[in-house]
Amino acid sequence: MRAFDIQRPDTSLRTAIQNKIDNLNKPRGSLGVLEDVAMQICLVQHTLSPELHRPCHLLLAGDHGIENEGVSVSPRVVTWQQMVNFTHGGGGVNMFCRQHGFKLILVDMGVDYDLTAYPAILNRKIARGTQNFIYGPAMSHMQFDQAIETGASLVDDCHKEGCNLLCIGEMGIGNTSPSSIWMSLLGGIPLSECVGTGAGLNAEGLRHKHDVLQRAMASARCETTEEIIRHFGGFEMVGAIGAMLRAAELGMLIIIDGFIMSACVFAASKLYPQVLDYAIFGHCGDESGHRRLLQLMNAQPLLELRLRLGEGTGALCAYPIINSAVRMMNEMNNFKDAKIDKYF
Amino acid sequence: MRAFDIQRPDTSLRTAIQNKIDNLNKPRGSLGVLEDVAMQICLVQHTLSPELHRPCHLLLAGDHGIENEGVSVSPRVVTWQQMVNFTHGGGGVNMFCRQHGFKLILVDMGVDYDLTAYPAILNRKIARGTQNFIYGPAMSHMQFDQAIETGASLVDDCHKEGCNLLCIGEMGIGNTSPSSIWMSLLGGIPLSECVGTGAGLNAEGLRHKHDVLQRAMASARCETTEEIIRHFGGFEMVGAIGAMLRAAELGMLIIIDGFIMSACVFAASKLYPQVLDYAIFGHCGDESGHRRLLQLMNAQPLLELRLRLGEGTGALCAYPIINSAVRMMNEMNNFKDAKIDKYF
Repeated sequence: MRAFDIQRPDTSLRTAIQNKIDNLNKPRGSLGVLEDVAMQICLVQHTLSPELHRPCHLLLAGDHGIENEGVSVSPRVVTWQQMVNFTHGGGGVNMFCRQHGFKLILVDMGVDYDLTAYPAILNRKIARGTQNFIYGPAMSHMQFDQAIETGASLVDDCHKEGCNLLCIGEMGIGNTSPSSIWMSLLGGIPLSECVGTGAGLNAEGLRHKHDVLQRAMASARCETTEEIIRHFGGFEMVGAIGAMLRAAELGMLIIIDGFIMSACVFAASKLYPQVLDYAIFGHCGDESGHRRLLQLMNAQPLLELRLRLGEGTGALCAYPIINSAVRMMNEMNNFKDAKIDKYF
Repeated sequence: MRAFDIQRPDTSLRTAIQNKIDNLNKPRGSLGVLEDVAMQICLVQHTLSPELHRPCHLLLAGDHGIENEGVSVSPRVVTWQQMVNFTHGGGGVNMFCRQHGFKLILVDMGVDYDLTAYPAILNRKIARGTQNFIYGPAMSHMQFDQAIETGASLVDDCHKEGCNLLCIGEMGIGNTSPSSIWMSLLGGIPLSECVGTGAGLNAEGLRHKHDVLQRAMASARCETTEEIIRHFGGFEMVGAIGAMLRAAELGMLIIIDGFIMSACVFAASKLYPQVLDYAIFGHCGDESGHRRLLQLMNAQPLLELRLRLGEGTGALCAYPIINSAVRMMNEMNNFKDAKIDKYF
């Protein structure tokens, strides 16, 4: 894959930013998490007066060969059916994008269905689903590079339109399976702590999923991070990694959704640790293992609403809080202007 | 005080509401907390298609005699100074109200300063601060009734303008002290578990605050809930209780802010338990004791952002999630309309 030139944010303004935050007309620290988010955004944007422009939501879709093994409660057709539903505006992700003013960009990264009849879905199809990673790599080296490039190029388009805040969501029946394996192999966590019920498996289904994934891990030969990502990943997930790395390269903020997107940014951080400086974690979801995965990155998610819908909905729900943090820096008076005796 | 005729919500639609939620195009239960909030709102509004109209934020201000005992890190003048600041739009509460489209109503319930020069502040002053409850009741029976009536009447005005969702915030230096005492006496919780650092007391300040409050509790003679509320409460707090009870009587939703507003709705629920059916808990704050207080009411706050600013900011921050819950009921397709194979 190509190299990404991701800079650590310049921290020379840190003291000035903290001074500004501490002199807003409120007890010091009393806006809690908003103050932490404001600091991160100010550092990324290298300013005391940050701004959010033209937020975009990339919804990347792909199917998974591993779905053939019965690891998901939902059938594969739901991937394309939901993408079509999103073109009509009736999905969860549509509602959140409308509510929070995000431009929704639907992308077929590798859905197992011909979606060309739907012009609202960008056709970036790499193949009709990945290969079943029980028998070999989910994708070829060329497909891996193509997925990374596609994700990066989608972000270029957003950036050219003035977007500086990106959400990424996914639609891909079966994609908690590769996420769990990435977490286990890249994080050194026993598989059993990484596997959850996805959209609603019962105890027997969960056992079966665990056994299938354990077999796949035992038979795979992956030496490097990149090989682990390629062997098990989905096109939408590798696309998300390309998008995250390019967004960080461009100095954009990235809101991270639930378990699957957390697995993607975790994998991305194993290639480029500095990508985490640009990541704001939106939500701790209901999938078991997500909390542990967040801990691996020292991530403090903004919300915990027991969402497990995917589509990026957990990230979108967190947007108003990020927006509040930015408004705090620009709209709140300081003690002097407000003519208030400073609190301690 | 007057009687309030607060009905329990009619639950005859519960099954129909749950069916609608379960048939939206998502795995069952996958919108987590949003589904719980949607259920509550649908029950309160007795509909499958709830709506939020003209949300109002009542910001009630008052000073406290107990402040003379050095129980707060901030000086009393901050109450009126902040109220004036809010008229200029530069406070935390202004920013959140603008962001979320709330009408902000500033009310002087009993500030120790003449604010009549500021027409943007409604003059409902009962007295220039309460009496110091170390030496006797904070307010007279007549003042108590006046505070309840004033709160109720402010809600009437909102309701007449079409508002069906109310936020209430407070500004009153020293008001964590009465809140802690209410919690202790009405909840049967040892005072030490109810007292926190407020806007930023140190360990010595905290010890002093605890000792002062303990002395006040030992010398007071209050037999009934109403007497406990009157003896220790602030005008803005009793006003909030009146506002909450009237809002529930009118079938409006109430978003509950942090520690002080939680103490108010807890006290209100000791008079009318059914007020809790109308309360949505916005935020678990940083003040120690708040989590315990929420548990006493089986409350599940939507957010936990370490806010401890007051002003109703924790409640306002939760509004987008409540709005999402309502949008979910109205904007998401069901499986049939969306032509999606139903997930399990």
